[in-house]
Amino acid sequence: MRILGIDPGLRATGYGVIESDGARMAYVASGTVRADSKDELPLRLKAILEGVAEVVATHGPQLAVVEKVFVNSNPQSTLLLGQARGAAICALVAADLPVFEYTALQIKQAVAGHGKAHKSAVQEMVRRLLRLSGSPSPDAADALATAICHTNHAASRRAAAAPSAGAGLRLKHGRLV
Amino acid sequence: MRILGIDPGLRATGYGVIESDGARMAYVASGTVRADSKDELPLRLKAILEGVAEVVATHGPQLAVVEKVFVNSNPQSTLLLGQARGAAICALVAADLPVFEYTALQIKQAVAGHGKAHKSAVQEMVRRLLRLSGSPSPDAADALATAICHTNHAASRRAAAAPSAGAGLRLKHGRLV
Repeated sequence: MRILGIDPGLRATGYGVIESDGARMAYVASGTVRADSKDELPLRLKAILEGVAEVVATHGPQLAVVEKVFVNSNPQSTLLLGQARGAAICALVAADLPVFEYTALQIKQAVAGHGKAHKSAVQEMVRRLLRLSGSPSPDAADALATAICHTNHAASRRAAAAPSAGAGLRLKHGRLV
Repeated sequence: MRILGIDPGLRATGYGVIESDGARMAYVASGTVRADSKDELPLRLKAILEGVAEVVATHGPQLAVVEKVFVNSNPQSTLLLGQARGAAICALVAADLPVFEYTALQIKQAVAGHGKAHKSAVQEMVRRLLRLSGSPSPDAADALATAICHTNHAASRRAAAAPSAGAGLRLKHGRLV
């Protein structure tokens, strides 16, 4: 399963692609889609839409995961960030990708074990979990962490869906069901 | 010139298409793109993206005008509205339409003469200006008013750009320039 994580922003939208077979995961790609802050808003949204669409076309993920953004203390900034997030999600749904959402708290807990981890701690844990030689940029690390978060949640959903040991497990096509 | 006006919203996005030759304008179409509020956010954004894209494909506007939305007192609502507006603008820029933006104040002034006009007054003025037999729905009326606002601003820009009477007018291809 190839998973695309997105950390949306109006200036910089981080992306990270990983492969996961449920038990193990591997790094595929990561980077940042940038929109020129001197451009008018519609052009900035177009840059995000086209940039994320290009990432999807290049790396062919089967699903996407987007960080739920915080509401900013400045309502105008919240409105701008909302529009940027809307543009990124549009690129994903236009490619018919299922889109999952997690909060920053859930994402930090998934990679660093607690919800108040600093950006540098997230970067370091992403580097270790994906066995990278160097740390990805903060935006790309957040996006990779978002993708990693989904693999954890998907794994726990599978565990929760499986019958308890006492209820007895059945083998079907060589797998416990 | 065929102009598409958009009044963005997460539940209902109003649209209105008019033709304008600078001096006169004519109604072409209007309506509402709806997103099911029971759906998850990505699916609601997809409904807006595809609905507005369909309006563009059907009516072939040369440019689009989008109302600048208010920041809501509830930051979470502001974030949701921002995402809906982002999705609508994405459908426009994906079709390579130039996108103009006006505030609700500018739009109300353009159709009703003052910035505090009620929704019903906007509906009635849109009905009169476009010589319709009945009032369009509030969302569609706001979208048509947005398109009308652009024709007024475009006309005043042309007037401002034209030389004053004292400076003398020239005829070029049968037009005053």
